[in-house]
Amino acid sequence: MDPPPLRTPTTPLYDDPEFYAAYATLRSQPGRINDVVEQPALRSLLPSLVGRDVADLGCGTGGMSRWALLQGARSVIAVDASDRMLAEARSLGGDPDRLRFVLSDIDRLELEPGSLDVVMSGLALHYVVDFGQLARRIATALRPGGAFVFSVEHPMTTCTSRAWTEGAEGERLHWPVDRYFEEGSRNVRWLGADTPREHRTVATYINAVVDSGLTIACVLEPSPSAADVERWPHLADHARRPAFLIIRADRALA
Amino acid sequence: MDPPPLRTPTTPLYDDPEFYAAYATLRSQPGRINDVVEQPALRSLLPSLVGRDVADLGCGTGGMSRWALLQGARSVIAVDASDRMLAEARSLGGDPDRLRFVLSDIDRLELEPGSLDVVMSGLALHYVVDFGQLARRIATALRPGGAFVFSVEHPMTTCTSRAWTEGAEGERLHWPVDRYFEEGSRNVRWLGADTPREHRTVATYINAVVDSGLTIACVLEPSPSAADVERWPHLADHARRPAFLIIRADRALA
Repeated sequence: MDPPPLRTPTTPLYDDPEFYAAYATLRSQPGRINDVVEQPALRSLLPSLVGRDVADLGCGTGGMSRWALLQGARSVIAVDASDRMLAEARSLGGDPDRLRFVLSDIDRLELEPGSLDVVMSGLALHYVVDFGQLARRIATALRPGGAFVFSVEHPMTTCTSRAWTEGAEGERLHWPVDRYFEEGSRNVRWLGADTPREHRTVATYINAVVDSGLTIACVLEPSPSAADVERWPHLADHARRPAFLIIRADRALA
Repeated sequence: MDPPPLRTPTTPLYDDPEFYAAYATLRSQPGRINDVVEQPALRSLLPSLVGRDVADLGCGTGGMSRWALLQGARSVIAVDASDRMLAEARSLGGDPDRLRFVLSDIDRLELEPGSLDVVMSGLALHYVVDFGQLARRIATALRPGGAFVFSVEHPMTTCTSRAWTEGAEGERLHWPVDRYFEEGSRNVRWLGADTPREHRTVATYINAVVDSGLTIACVLEPSPSAADVERWPHLADHARRPAFLIIRADRALA
């Protein structure tokens, strides 16, 4: 039997001190898949941020938001549901005239229509319950010519247990897929806690974006290169099945 | 050891009499996933065909081409690489003034620029080697406002062996995914032959279409409904992982 989850319904996952400590330790390790694969791929899809008004949904400790400032963004609204995350984010600096932190569930976030040039989100929207509604709010918040760029855990990984099928000697045989069409919340054991993911299919992500009125510009399923794997052998499995789905969608020029 | 493949490099797969007989037997069985799930989903994405000039790439015995005539298409060009397929297709009727059969590899097919309103293809483009080049030829062949609608075996099924991972009693535990990023030809045992599939990722299919200048209108990963599975219990596994990827992409109005 799994132990009960650390968090309670009234404690956002990342506000739990034990979970947060485990997450902070993980984040400090070198050669993380997020640093080596996900963030470079996500950032490669962003348009120039010079002079742009940007929102970062699920900013965590604000790494991508501060990077956006360095890229020349005019303003960044950095949104996260965890007080603890935002406290650390604030402690790490960033021009307060241009960087504003907002404590909010993404599901409940209000975005002013026509107020943003870029909405970006790294590995947060698989926590969002109503992605279709969020996509519509984002499409409305974007100015003509604006872009929505986001990464999520790949539906091939959120559909099941996030554990490789192993052989008799513990070797990883393949990645198991099942329950792909059963959309909804999955509890995934991660860092000692039951962490919920909202599983959606690839088609659901793409069609929600299209139905919001945005145009699909690019889809990435990034993986580590041979050089990445040589340097960080623990990333080898991520070259066997997709860990991330990254989408850029554009609002047409008026 | 697998027996050697039935076909030789000089015999298109479906021209081999043994393979063709096995295929014809399969096709005549009731409750096929292609009939219950794939074709309805593919056809649901087509625009009205009334008065339209249509191409059907990999027409096989021409079922979808004749259906397009019944829907009111002005003309249908039905393309297949197999003489045997086209011979059967011709024997099954269809107004010869409106339905033209063309023997050609899809990879080598020439399409007249601006000559078509709809290009459709059912479960054939996973045989095509250079999908990016094909998408560009199709985009050029479409008139403004035209549509490209196609189904392929889902990348989650073309990446590996097309066999479920089974438990001790033969029960199907899950679908194994591996080698997802290794694009290129895979030999898949099917109907007693090594049948080649060109494995590509979901991202590759979508980006090739986007790069051709078309706009993604809808993506489907269809699965049997509960009612389908009740009627055809052998389809149950197809409700666990996606068998098909179906994409509609539109050429903008001028």
